[in-house]
Amino acid sequence: MNLHEVGEFGLIDLIRENTVADPSAVVAGIGDDAAVYRPGAGLYQLLTTDMLVENIHFLLARTTPWQLGYRAIAVNLSDIAAMGGRPRHAVVAVGLPPRLPVEFVVALYDGMKEICREFAVNIVGGDTVASPHGLVINAAVTGEVAPDGLLLRSGARPGDAVVVTGTLGDAACGLELLLTEDWERHEFAWPLVTAHLTPRPQVATGPLLAGWGATSADDISDGLASEAHEIAKASGVGIRLYADRIPLSSQLTAAAVLLGKPPLDYALYGGEDFQLVFTIGQDKVGRLAGKGGPLTVVGEVTAREDGVVLVAADGAAAALRPRGYNHFR
Amino acid sequence: MNLHEVGEFGLIDLIRENTVADPSAVVAGIGDDAAVYRPGAGLYQLLTTDMLVENIHFLLARTTPWQLGYRAIAVNLSDIAAMGGRPRHAVVAVGLPPRLPVEFVVALYDGMKEICREFAVNIVGGDTVASPHGLVINAAVTGEVAPDGLLLRSGARPGDAVVVTGTLGDAACGLELLLTEDWERHEFAWPLVTAHLTPRPQVATGPLLAGWGATSADDISDGLASEAHEIAKASGVGIRLYADRIPLSSQLTAAAVLLGKPPLDYALYGGEDFQLVFTIGQDKVGRLAGKGGPLTVVGEVTAREDGVVLVAADGAAAALRPRGYNHFR
Repeated sequence: MNLHEVGEFGLIDLIRENTVADPSAVVAGIGDDAAVYRPGAGLYQLLTTDMLVENIHFLLARTTPWQLGYRAIAVNLSDIAAMGGRPRHAVVAVGLPPRLPVEFVVALYDGMKEICREFAVNIVGGDTVASPHGLVINAAVTGEVAPDGLLLRSGARPGDAVVVTGTLGDAACGLELLLTEDWERHEFAWPLVTAHLTPRPQVATGPLLAGWGATSADDISDGLASEAHEIAKASGVGIRLYADRIPLSSQLTAAAVLLGKPPLDYALYGGEDFQLVFTIGQDKVGRLAGKGGPLTVVGEVTAREDGVVLVAADGAAAALRPRGYNHFR
Repeated sequence: MNLHEVGEFGLIDLIRENTVADPSAVVAGIGDDAAVYRPGAGLYQLLTTDMLVENIHFLLARTTPWQLGYRAIAVNLSDIAAMGGRPRHAVVAVGLPPRLPVEFVVALYDGMKEICREFAVNIVGGDTVASPHGLVINAAVTGEVAPDGLLLRSGARPGDAVVVTGTLGDAACGLELLLTEDWERHEFAWPLVTAHLTPRPQVATGPLLAGWGATSADDISDGLASEAHEIAKASGVGIRLYADRIPLSSQLTAAAVLLGKPPLDYALYGGEDFQLVFTIGQDKVGRLAGKGGPLTVVGEVTAREDGVVLVAADGAAAALRPRGYNHFR
């Protein structure tokens, strides 16, 4: 069945089921001019948006529609988590090539619904339009945070520790593997490719950070080097990272040998890990042990004039630049 | 200057000025992972999104970037107005062909900022990505409405009057004119083309409707026939419209002669007027005179089994169908 046959309204009827995971705050979801919801009393509202474009952010030959839907929401939830917030409601606009099978679109929304169900996020509206030259998916997601739970990029103070969640570089390495012909035959490749295709945002950890005493946070979407620069710039500080403390998975280390690149490059310059990096007073680091998944101290906040620096395993320090990441190549 | 030269961060620096028209509620705008704002006390939050795709919703040869930016926001404000709400904050994602000049993107945002300034809406965030095969613009806009000011499509009651704002069909006729070679030489064409390129959403009127006693509302984005069906379906009622009461501009009447089509067709089946249609108790219609711009009673709400009907000037009634409007042709 193709989109022309079902039409826009037929398509909406096919996808609107099971879009509300937590009905408590929803006054009106899909089906009116705008969604209506009750904000949480005393909370700030958060709002973020991300656009995924075919052949830039994904290749249809290398992803299933379900994975793509999951990822389109995941990247937004990561932004909410990085503010210390809890994601609440999403609107999704899709630009669909007219020849796309209806089944593809239904699977795309099934992937979105899965991650939304997992994190109690509601899809409350959207837009479905034709796109003649490629698939485009745009999600905008709201979140909520108590004023004292909010974490900006600008709160880092000299002396703070720099901490990251999880392992870094897996997704970027997974993307490189995915573009090779025979990645499936390497057992180590599967978790890396999964980290790229269906990243798990740190929805549970984000809202805990302020309570632990974190002073700033960012999600790691463009590589740790780039995020360190963003926190340094926004906070007016320097950052010193230690190469041998940056957490790498054993799978990444194995894959990097295959791909012939230094594994650390994926962590520093690769994108889309959707882990969190945050800063926190050194006196509070000791209390992080055993809290909310793997946390690793990777460096410290310094004075602005020290810049963003990477200390190699041999102790040599060098300026760390984000590697000319530019979407408009 | 092209996008490759300035890069994503350079581009953001160019467009982030003057994005906050009403700073009172904004805690953090452009420049962090998500925008942060204070919701109005006791108000419902509204959220809507619309995607505009090159060669589907606009032709770059027939619009300026400023007009396109204006329109991308206008269509969303119209959705907020149709809920009875006041628009507040916007996030805008753009998919940009890499060869697009930077000046084009700056003008695009200038058009957005102009309509945002006009209606005190803040651009608080967004996403800028590459799009290899055409320009894509997606805006998501929040709004606020007091619970007793909210208007859904589902509140129409048999006996209500059906009322529209402004004149209908101008934008659809303007689009047809815009696709002809020599529309500029017809004086009547200018307001019609303007109605298509830079529609003015009913931001002032929307929030007044519930206070007047309106029972349901919709914005007229797909033609009056389609919107009448949406209200009828959502409310479980029928709707009877009178052909000779539907307000048409003199310019539309003149242009329809040139284009060889019945002028009423543009009002009934044309899209993107972004006027409002609402229902209201007959006893309250008398009090609408002189309120908030031109208002015209075009019909009445009937019982569901009567369906959606158009009564011609000669009194003959016939079922009114939305004309197979399908984005996926």
